[in-house]
Amino acid sequence: MAAINGAPKSKATTYAARLKTGRALALDVWSIFNQANLPADCINLGQGYMNFPPPQWVTDAASEALSTVAANHYSHPRGRVRLREAIKNYYEPLLARPLDPNSEILVSSGANEGQYSVFTAFLNPGDEVIMFEPFFDQYLPSVTFNGGTPVYVPLHPPPAAQAKTTSNDWTIDFDELRRSITPRCKMIILNTPHNPVGKVFTRTELEGIAALAEEFDLMVMSDEVYESLVFDGKEHVRFATLPRMWERTVTVGSAGKMFAATGWRVGWLIGPESIIGPTLAAQTRIVFCTNSPLQEAAAAGLEQAAARNYFATEVADYAERRQIIVDAFDSLGLKYTLPEGTYFILLDISDFDLPEGYPYPETVAGRGRDFKFGWVMAQEVGVSAIPVSEFYCEEHGNIGEKFIRFAFCKDVGTLRQAAVKLAGLKKLLKKNRA
Amino acid sequence: MAAINGAPKSKATTYAARLKTGRALALDVWSIFNQANLPADCINLGQGYMNFPPPQWVTDAASEALSTVAANHYSHPRGRVRLREAIKNYYEPLLARPLDPNSEILVSSGANEGQYSVFTAFLNPGDEVIMFEPFFDQYLPSVTFNGGTPVYVPLHPPPAAQAKTTSNDWTIDFDELRRSITPRCKMIILNTPHNPVGKVFTRTELEGIAALAEEFDLMVMSDEVYESLVFDGKEHVRFATLPRMWERTVTVGSAGKMFAATGWRVGWLIGPESIIGPTLAAQTRIVFCTNSPLQEAAAAGLEQAAARNYFATEVADYAERRQIIVDAFDSLGLKYTLPEGTYFILLDISDFDLPEGYPYPETVAGRGRDFKFGWVMAQEVGVSAIPVSEFYCEEHGNIGEKFIRFAFCKDVGTLRQAAVKLAGLKKLLKKNRA
Repeated sequence: MAAINGAPKSKATTYAARLKTGRALALDVWSIFNQANLPADCINLGQGYMNFPPPQWVTDAASEALSTVAANHYSHPRGRVRLREAIKNYYEPLLARPLDPNSEILVSSGANEGQYSVFTAFLNPGDEVIMFEPFFDQYLPSVTFNGGTPVYVPLHPPPAAQAKTTSNDWTIDFDELRRSITPRCKMIILNTPHNPVGKVFTRTELEGIAALAEEFDLMVMSDEVYESLVFDGKEHVRFATLPRMWERTVTVGSAGKMFAATGWRVGWLIGPESIIGPTLAAQTRIVFCTNSPLQEAAAAGLEQAAARNYFATEVADYAERRQIIVDAFDSLGLKYTLPEGTYFILLDISDFDLPEGYPYPETVAGRGRDFKFGWVMAQEVGVSAIPVSEFYCEEHGNIGEKFIRFAFCKDVGTLRQAAVKLAGLKKLLKKNRA
Repeated sequence: MAAINGAPKSKATTYAARLKTGRALALDVWSIFNQANLPADCINLGQGYMNFPPPQWVTDAASEALSTVAANHYSHPRGRVRLREAIKNYYEPLLARPLDPNSEILVSSGANEGQYSVFTAFLNPGDEVIMFEPFFDQYLPSVTFNGGTPVYVPLHPPPAAQAKTTSNDWTIDFDELRRSITPRCKMIILNTPHNPVGKVFTRTELEGIAALAEEFDLMVMSDEVYESLVFDGKEHVRFATLPRMWERTVTVGSAGKMFAATGWRVGWLIGPESIIGPTLAAQTRIVFCTNSPLQEAAAAGLEQAAARNYFATEVADYAERRQIIVDAFDSLGLKYTLPEGTYFILLDISDFDLPEGYPYPETVAGRGRDFKFGWVMAQEVGVSAIPVSEFYCEEHGNIGEKFIRFAFCKDVGTLRQAAVKLAGLKKLLKKNRA
C-alpha cells in the first residue's frame, strides 16, 4: 500500500521506470519547446497543429449538430450511425471491400485513444510490439502502459554524402526487421505516411512487411492518419488492401488531420470484427463514447469532401506550404529530406556548428545535439522545430540527433515569415562549408 | 502468440473472464433495454440521458469557439486554461480552499475517462478497490482492466416493511466496511449523490468513511458528478472538505451532468498534485487531450451559472420531474425510494407478479427477476427502466433484484405521458395486494 501522506505510489511512475531510459522522466520535448519558453516573436514550427481553422462548411455542421437534442447526448460507443455510414462510404472504394459499420468500424476519441484501446484489448504482459524509428512519440508509453514491450527497428536515413534526398530514401533493412521478431512478438506498428520522416511506404516495402506478418502471425496496426496528405502523385498504398492482410490489420484514421481540427478528438479504426470487437470492449470502459457534435461534423466532412474537391485542394495547399520551406532550405544549400507525405520536413543539421559556451537551460543541456541546435535556432534565428532524437529509443538516439523536424501545417503568411527568418541559419553553418 | 486467423487472443476477453462472473460476457443491460428491442411507442426511462438540449447560452459558447482557430486545435493535456480557471473559481468556495489550476485540476474526456486514468495511474496488479453496491456499472471493468480487484460493500436497503423510504434509508454497515479492508486495499470509490439509489451521503457517514481511509491509508475517489442535483435543501457534503481528506481524495465532476450535455465528454478531476500529476501522465497517453470547443462551452457554463441562477433553476426543474414520477407511484400505492439527489428513482418490485409463461427473449430469460419485470413492463405498460441487479456483483444480485431504476432526466411532457402509462402497472400488482 502506498504512502499517501507523501506521494501516492503511482503505476505511471512504475511504468516510466520500465521504459529502460531515464529520458521518460526527463521533461518531454513538447514542454521544452513550448512557446512559453521561447522568445516571444519565435515562429513555432514545432508542434503539428494548424494555425488555421477547419473549413467553414465542416464547422457549420458542428454548430448545426449543437442545435439538436440528440447530438448533444451520448453516442453509441461504436460511434454515431451517421459517421460510421460516412466512413463506410468513404473507405469502401479505398479499401476495395464492403465494410460493415456495425462490426468493422469504430469511432474513437481521437486516433490516439483508438490506438491505446487496441493495445489495451490485445497486449498481454511481455508481448512485444515492433515500431519503426523514428516513431510517433505516443506509441512507446501507450504500449508500455498496457504491459507491452517495444522493439525498435530503425528506418535507415540516406547516406550523408547524398545531396538531394526524399523520404523514400529512408529504408527498412528487412534482415534487421526479421531478426527483431521473437516468439513474444504480437504486433507491428506501421505509420504511412510517416511522421516525422514524411515517407510514404512503397508497395514493395509493404509487401515485405506483410510477408513477415503472415510468416510470424502478427497483428498490424497501420496508422494512416496522414492518408490525405500525399504529394507529387505518389500512391498511398493501404496496408489492409494487401492480399490476406485484412484479417490481421487495424487501419487508423483521423478527422483532425483530414479537416484541420486536431482539437476535435475524433478518429476511427477500421478492421475485421475480431479486432474491432475486443477494442470496442476496451474503449467502452476507457471513454464510453466519443463526443457527439464533432462526430456529426466529421461525418459532414467525409460526406461532402468529394463534391467539394476538398482533399485535392487540401493537398495542393500543403504542397504550396511545403515549397516555401523547401525554397528557404535550398537557398542556403541545406540538406533535408523532401517529404512525400505528411506536413513534416526533416532538416539535416550535420552542417551546422553549435556556438561554444552557449547558455542552455538545464532541460536542454544534458540532451542530444539536436536539442541544443533546436534551442539555439529558436533563440538566434527565431524559428522553433522539434529535435528528432525524441522519436528514437535512447540506444538509437544518435541517428535522430542529426535531424530536426519542422511542421508546415501553418498558413502561407506565417511560413513566408519563417522562411525570411530561416535565412539566419546561414550564420550557424560550419565555417568550412559556408 | 495468438492465432489471428481465428479470433485474435484478446486481453479484453482475459479480463472479462477475471470478473469472476459469467455476467461480464452476457449481453449488457443497455443493449437489452435498448429502444431498438422495445415496442416502438415505449417511453425510455432507462438510460440516463436527457431528451432536452443544453441551455442555449452554453451551446452558443460552443458555436462561438468553433468560429475561432485555437479552439479547434489541441488543448493542453491538463485542459484549456479558460476551463481550468472556471473550475478553480467555481470550486474554491465549495471546497473551501485555494486551487492551483496548473497542478490540482485536470480536465478529462468525460468523468468516466478521468476515473479510468486514475485507475491506470495508481492501480498495481492485485490492488483492491472498495465500491459500494449498487455501483455505477463502469467502475467494475475500469478497475479490473487496470489490474485491480473490486471489493463490494453493499448499501443496505430499508426494511421491506417500511412504507415510505428515502435514499437516506439505504445505509452502510461500518463493521462490514471495516472487515472488507485488507492489506491489499488501495482505494475506496464513493459516489455522492449516488447512482442509482439517489442517496446523498450524510456528513456522519462520510466522516465514518474518512476515519477508515485515514486508519488504513486509502485513496478516495469521490465521484460527485451529480453534485448539482440535490433536492429539498439537503446538504451535499464534499468528501475532500473533511479534515485531512484533501491529500488523499480526487473529486470527480462532469459538465455533461451539470449542463445536460452527456455527449460532450467533458469532465474534470480535482485533487492534490500527488494524485493529479500521475493521472495526467496516464491521461496524456490515453487520450492526449480533451476536445477543445466543448471545453470552452463548459467554461462558459461555469462562468455564467451564478449570474443566471442556473443551478437553482435546474434543481427546481428536476424536482418537478421527480414529482411527476412520484405522483404516479403514489397513486398506485407503490413502494419506492425517494431520491435526495441525482435523476434516478428506484421502484421496489416485490409487490408485483410476473405473468406465468411469459415469452422472454433469450437475453432476459436467464437473468434475475428485475430483468424479467423490466421486460414485461416495457412490453405491457410501455415504459422502460433498468434492472438494478446490474449494479451489483453476482453474489449480491439478489439485493438488486428487488428494484428497477427509472431515469427522470426527461422533459415534463414525456414524463407526464410516462405517468399515464405507468397507471398500467396496476394490472401487474399481486392479486392479494391490489
